[in-house]
Amino acid sequence: MTATTIGVIGCGYWGPNLLRNFAENEAAQLRLICDLDDARLAAMGRRYPAARTTNDYQNLLADSGLDAVAIVTPVATHFQIAKEALLAGKHVLVEKPLTATTREAEELIELAERNRRTLMVDHTFVYTGAVRKMKEIVASGELGDLLYFDSIRINLGLFQRDINVLWDLAPHDLSIMDYLIERQPIGVSALGSCHIEPGIENIAYLVMKFPDDFIAHFHFNWLAPVKIRRTLIAGARKMILYDDIEPTEKVRVYDKGVTANRVTDREADYQTLVSYRTGDVWAPKLDSTEALRHVVAEFLDSIVSKRKPLTDGEVGLRVVRILEAAQQSIKEGGNFKLLRSAASAIQN
Amino acid sequence: MTATTIGVIGCGYWGPNLLRNFAENEAAQLRLICDLDDARLAAMGRRYPAARTTNDYQNLLADSGLDAVAIVTPVATHFQIAKEALLAGKHVLVEKPLTATTREAEELIELAERNRRTLMVDHTFVYTGAVRKMKEIVASGELGDLLYFDSIRINLGLFQRDINVLWDLAPHDLSIMDYLIERQPIGVSALGSCHIEPGIENIAYLVMKFPDDFIAHFHFNWLAPVKIRRTLIAGARKMILYDDIEPTEKVRVYDKGVTANRVTDREADYQTLVSYRTGDVWAPKLDSTEALRHVVAEFLDSIVSKRKPLTDGEVGLRVVRILEAAQQSIKEGGNFKLLRSAASAIQN
Amino acid sequence: MTATTIGVIGCGYWGPNLLRNFAENEAAQLRLICDLDDARLAAMGRRYPAARTTNDYQNLLADSGLDAVAIVTPVATHFQIAKEALLAGKHVLVEKPLTATTREAEELIELAERNRRTLMVDHTFVYTGAVRKMKEIVASGELGDLLYFDSIRINLGLFQRDINVLWDLAPHDLSIMDYLIERQPIGVSALGSCHIEPGIENIAYLVMKFPDDFIAHFHFNWLAPVKIRRTLIAGARKMILYDDIEPTEKVRVYDKGVTANRVTDREADYQTLVSYRTGDVWAPKLDSTEALRHVVAEFLDSIVSKRKPLTDGEVGLRVVRILEAAQQSIKEGGNFKLLRSAASAIQN
Amino acid sequence: MTATTIGVIGCGYWGPNLLRNFAENEAAQLRLICDLDDARLAAMGRRYPAARTTNDYQNLLADSGLDAVAIVTPVATHFQIAKEALLAGKHVLVEKPLTATTREAEELIELAERNRRTLMVDHTFVYTGAVRKMKEIVASGELGDLLYFDSIRINLGLFQRDINVLWDLAPHDLSIMDYLIERQPIGVSALGSCHIEPGIENIAYLVMKFPDDFIAHFHFNWLAPVKIRRTLIAGARKMILYDDIEPTEKVRVYDKGVTANRVTDREADYQTLVSYRTGDVWAPKLDSTEALRHVVAEFLDSIVSKRKPLTDGEVGLRVVRILEAAQQSIKEGGNFKLLRSAASAIQN
Repeated sequence: MTATTIGVIGCGYWGPNLLRNFAENEAAQLRLICDLDDARLAAMGRRYPAARTTNDYQNLLADSGLDAVAIVTPVATHFQIAKEALLAGKHVLVEKPLTATTREAEELIELAERNRRTLMVDHTFVYTGAVRKMKEIVASGELGDLLYFDSIRINLGLFQRDINVLWDLAPHDLSIMDYLIERQPIGVSALGSCHIEPGIENIAYLVMKFPDDFIAHFHFNWLAPVKIRRTLIAGARKMILYDDIEPTEKVRVYDKGVTANRVTDREADYQTLVSYRTGDVWAPKLDSTEALRHVVAEFLDSIVSKRKPLTDGEVGLRVVRILEAAQQSIKEGGNFKLLRSAASAIQN
Repeated sequence: MTATTIGVIGCGYWGPNLLRNFAENEAAQLRLICDLDDARLAAMGRRYPAARTTNDYQNLLADSGLDAVAIVTPVATHFQIAKEALLAGKHVLVEKPLTATTREAEELIELAERNRRTLMVDHTFVYTGAVRKMKEIVASGELGDLLYFDSIRINLGLFQRDINVLWDLAPHDLSIMDYLIERQPIGVSALGSCHIEPGIENIAYLVMKFPDDFIAHFHFNWLAPVKIRRTLIAGARKMILYDDIEPTEKVRVYDKGVTANRVTDREADYQTLVSYRTGDVWAPKLDSTEALRHVVAEFLDSIVSKRKPLTDGEVGLRVVRILEAAQQSIKEGGNFKLLRSAASAIQN
Repeated sequence: MTATTIGVIGCGYWGPNLLRNFAENEAAQLRLICDLDDARLAAMGRRYPAARTTNDYQNLLADSGLDAVAIVTPVATHFQIAKEALLAGKHVLVEKPLTATTREAEELIELAERNRRTLMVDHTFVYTGAVRKMKEIVASGELGDLLYFDSIRINLGLFQRDINVLWDLAPHDLSIMDYLIERQPIGVSALGSCHIEPGIENIAYLVMKFPDDFIAHFHFNWLAPVKIRRTLIAGARKMILYDDIEPTEKVRVYDKGVTANRVTDREADYQTLVSYRTGDVWAPKLDSTEALRHVVAEFLDSIVSKRKPLTDGEVGLRVVRILEAAQQSIKEGGNFKLLRSAASAIQN
Repeated sequence: MTATTIGVIGCGYWGPNLLRNFAENEAAQLRLICDLDDARLAAMGRRYPAARTTNDYQNLLADSGLDAVAIVTPVATHFQIAKEALLAGKHVLVEKPLTATTREAEELIELAERNRRTLMVDHTFVYTGAVRKMKEIVASGELGDLLYFDSIRINLGLFQRDINVLWDLAPHDLSIMDYLIERQPIGVSALGSCHIEPGIENIAYLVMKFPDDFIAHFHFNWLAPVKIRRTLIAGARKMILYDDIEPTEKVRVYDKGVTANRVTDREADYQTLVSYRTGDVWAPKLDSTEALRHVVAEFLDSIVSKRKPLTDGEVGLRVVRILEAAQQSIKEGGNFKLLRSAASAIQN
């Protein structure tokens, strides 16, 4: 089998990790590396002497021997580069978030379908051992009916200049939730504040409503004294605590719950007796393979097998749709914003 | 000096703690104990043989030798009992929250002022060593400009039948914030969900806006797999992490922050250089006296000194005003609700 | 069935807890309370008005209507009071450690057997939900061959005046180990230091050898900046971490281990390939009943059923034998001291 | 200033870290890389194309243009290679532990002195921000008289084939203690057990006595379910908790202690009143520079400045002397072994 030839556009913070994983995957052949910065480009060139380097991503698109590109550039540039790459017949892996607007994401999806190319978004966390183990647990049904999803991702973080804390951090947790709970929110409300840089929120809270009692909430923060990455996923029978800071026991399943028993007695027609249940705690062993290794393998396999990747354009669109609505809600001071469903959005 | 004579109405979960603290305070004379439940009343009577017991709180109000009453009954009954007690010339300490509506709280404040009686609300946490130490730190100005207040109080909790998680838990954190930051929110938005008992929220998120960039957020939850009680108070220069679960180091002051330096260079008219600062962490020694001992002492001293107590009716009103608006917001699906200022509320 | 009549001698730190548990047990009738201190005695008398009080424990021994006594006095007095109580025909529960010397323990055991009375030592920790759950796990064999027992019990503790840190804290962990591992050490070596009070060790390390590769180690410390109570019990297949400070998940079972596979290859006659195994972590739900309730129930039942209690005189003797040898080792600067087996000790 | 030319012998687990730090230090010129394994050697050669590679360390010793060598080989080979290097006029940095016997260490020290060459041991932990900050604190005297040093270093570790857990892990903690407390033990006692591989201890306890009441204790373990690296350093006035697993607050200074006040009263000629003191906790900011960078800088500067490095041969010898005595104690079942002082050892 011939290896899929790969070009990587962007060698900033995340690009070198993708380069390394493509270089180590035998199904890929790293052919081209692109960055605007000459020093970074030269460093990557020395590290991967078999690949060519260029300042101009057009050189990748024009290379008929190149099968696929990974786009690891600032968010604002994702759409233009991905669009041109798809038009040039390349398969495309885009760093999260997929695009800066839903309109852009929808156009990329359409282009990829029309040209029969793979469009995949690098939602890295979906490929971690912790999230895949939680998927197994949720899918088995052992949690019972899902009740809420509560996520905190805070730190004294790297301030971004081009995007705010929402666009920087929320794609992680929104993609995790999208993967795990398999239900779509009907709307979102968000509030944020800009303490350091005018116009760039450094703290944001986001809450989502669903067709039933399920509720989801998120706290994103670049300006916290401690690093916390913790998610609660509550079911009627069991609950998960996912603490990504823990070195090994990242996922704990609590056999805990509350049951409402409706009974009839003389004094009242019916009354509810709430009974608590508390049992064992279980921390499953997790696969510790680097998530990006799975990302790269999924991208390569979806190209060869001509199938949709796990985190395809639709998944990327769903995350961007929430980001866009949340950003609008922040702008309007917390107003609740309805989310059009993915289906209706494309039809319109 | 003669001791202030005290009657306690309600011997349920919290009442016995107040009874014990009044019994141990030499400035108080525990004279009357009231409860509807005969068994509980008899048990308390045996424990405090010098006090009389009664099923009817009217017996307390009619006792001309009784100076003050503590009302430790369900929230819905606070107003009626407190009103009658004030009209009967008694000083009144009310369990949190002060009342079930702002209108009730305003009426009690007015009554107390007209009759020159002490009206105090038992916001216990305000009297803990941790909160008083944080007050010192915030008041000293060493945190710099305050940026946000973020609080989580979750557990697999005791489900209440008469009130939801908001009215049960929020008075703690709202009173702590009210005490520490000394600024008034302009509005509140909240979302909640009823997973167990229809109409009784067991999870609620609450966010408050202020006239400036300051933002406050709260998570209350009776249905969580783990017990967390943690608050972040961020300033521009330093930040506090208050973890009430920690046995001793409940308060940590982080000498951490981010500074935005606006500079001019050739390429851009101005740009912001964000610089991080991270320094020592300090966990001050805390007074470990039981908070309720301070509550009782403050109540007794404010009566004798004819002064306002630290947590007076106005404080209780401010908390009830937020609870009422938040409850309305939950009912409306998260709509932002403006908060009338305490001053204007009373004028109207 | 008539209740067993009980007298409690000693109302200091621990006595009130025993009083409360005897008072709440329906199979017991608290008949007499004894203490040298009048104020303490009066307080207990008010709390348990149905019991008589006395300053002189001889009044208990002389009371023919009294079935059993609990001795909660300083260690140095245990032997004399217990001996007289057994001679007077009473069943005896003694606070840990059973006695100050093995000779005393042996004499009490002999007396109890001759007079057919129950002799029990209050090794409270053996009756906790955590230790009983660990017993289940160890007894099931799932840990595989036991390899070591490592225990730490340190704090900025209450300095005792009459005994050192070894006699104060070691009975807890020695009784836990004795219960869990069911094998007898062949000798002990210990070192300690007296930093505060000459002649009273405030820190001590104790290590025990066994007939096989099993090894046990203990660290006791009254002068530590943090409170740690943690035990490792390692088996060849699984390992337990018992952390008594954890509020709920006190016992964790780690499915971890190392396997030595001896293989033959060309280069060496045989070589060992060490393979690591790491799996799930499991924190079983624990019974949270107060341990002392089980202690009291076991004492009462062993009297009525005329059977040996779980923590009988022999168990108490085994712990005292280790304490005595460890103390001698400390005195000799760490010399290894052989332990006579319980059987041979009694025969001599 | 011309750079010091460096050769590194051994590219196994630790060697690549030293290579990287020499390569990044401008005062060094990485000239030669040596390893027996061709694949490893080739990989390092590609990474550092300016350096030559060889299978034979004699090629380094014979290179008259080479100033210094770093020896990162199995412990058993340290002495022979270091001796030849010193005889060839090279400055020598040796991975810990310095040698396999005290006799070897003494001979290297003598050789280095006679040939006026730098002999340094890579006690990496001494150069961490945490240990250097603790040195500052201890040296300032604020802890008061030092009372004990207690260290735990356990994990489900990498089993070594050539050395046991003592020789693998103890050099870290022994060198930290040697650096911090500046007093010499008079003897050592140790016990260990071989659960996996006959003759290779995988768990060891070590206790040291000093001329005064100071006591030191260590627990080393390759077969523990959890990773713990924690040291207590207690002074009469303050105490340090050093937890190397903590991501940032590795060092905490507790303002805690116990004071023995000797007073005279009527009842006893004198009695001691022990009073507890508990105050703030302080976690100083630590330099997070990679320790090995400081190791390399110290080696290079001591060569150029013709001065003793911080961790010179004498320091290495003191650690080996304890290891050797502890190993002998384990062999003898825990016998106490006297330690000859460094001074007298060299004189003999």
